[in-house]
Amino acid sequence: MHADRTLRIQPPDWVEETVDWKATYSTDEDRMRVAILLARENVARRTGGPFGAAVFRLPEGALVAAGVNSVTRLVNSVLHAEILAIMLAQKRVGSFTLDLPGGGTHALVTSCEPCAMCLGATLWSGARHLVCGATREDATALGFDEGPVFPESYTYLESRKIAVVRGVLRKEAAEVLQLYQRSGGEIYNA
Amino acid sequence: MHADRTLRIQPPDWVEETVDWKATYSTDEDRMRVAILLARENVARRTGGPFGAAVFRLPEGALVAAGVNSVTRLVNSVLHAEILAIMLAQKRVGSFTLDLPGGGTHALVTSCEPCAMCLGATLWSGARHLVCGATREDATALGFDEGPVFPESYTYLESRKIAVVRGVLRKEAAEVLQLYQRSGGEIYNA
Repeated sequence: MHADRTLRIQPPDWVEETVDWKATYSTDEDRMRVAILLARENVARRTGGPFGAAVFRLPEGALVAAGVNSVTRLVNSVLHAEILAIMLAQKRVGSFTLDLPGGGTHALVTSCEPCAMCLGATLWSGARHLVCGATREDATALGFDEGPVFPESYTYLESRKIAVVRGVLRKEAAEVLQLYQRSGGEIYNA
Repeated sequence: MHADRTLRIQPPDWVEETVDWKATYSTDEDRMRVAILLARENVARRTGGPFGAAVFRLPEGALVAAGVNSVTRLVNSVLHAEILAIMLAQKRVGSFTLDLPGGGTHALVTSCEPCAMCLGATLWSGARHLVCGATREDATALGFDEGPVFPESYTYLESRKIAVVRGVLRKEAAEVLQLYQRSGGEIYNA
């Protein structure tokens, strides 16, 4: 008898109905509202940590994939919101890079600046734009560790032609972190 | 109709039969041979990049999970060997951290020093030991990018009580990278 070595990974059921998959998200702010909605609902429905992320196709702004932090729900420390969004986006476009030849570019939009793992994952994802809401300081104020991310880490992304925009709707994004703290949410990687 | 948003992730079939799951791996070298075997077979069977990783329970050295690079096979840029090994190990022990209360500690053993993503993932995995074979220089010599990993990144891991050992069976581990190069393997994130 073999052990079961198949991982089955999916977003919570509520994501499908909560997000408007047909809308066009034209600006970074429009796209960030989706990431913040995902983060907020993940807290309200108690399906994970206070983080949401989504991948959009540019320039038109179609929503390709949505992720929420799923560490506790799926018992898997890798499943930060960005990781889930990247994996689902690549499944949807059928490519291990979102930098498609002639297929437009993609933006990864996250409700909070990525931890060391997710910053690295962004690099390999093929996304050409990274858009962040709340800051590292907002996350660490709650007790979340963001890992070895340095100013040089962002310089590295930019040297690989990834455009980074930070602090988009920061206040709204940080409010979700505070909501999680007030609701007694678990700091699973303190 | 909803899109299919379920990811099914598993190692190649040959892993189950190729690795000795019942042996005891007492030393870092014993454990590294498993990671190198996984890397070499992944090249020989053309199931992915030249990287293998495994998680062992300490102190006795039982093999808990085995991963190989699965980026091209599963069309998913996140699925480096270390990521797959960590996810499978957490599924097996039923915990999103391998730092189990009273349950011993775990080592993540990888045939090559981790990229920025996998170094961050190591931190969140709860593994208390990281053992590396080939070096960043060995990987970048082939054209693989390792991302924003700095000396301070390792210092950060050690500050979080993760013991790091590098260069274990480096020569044998680096030979697998060269084998991949000679076989014309794809450098998927150059």
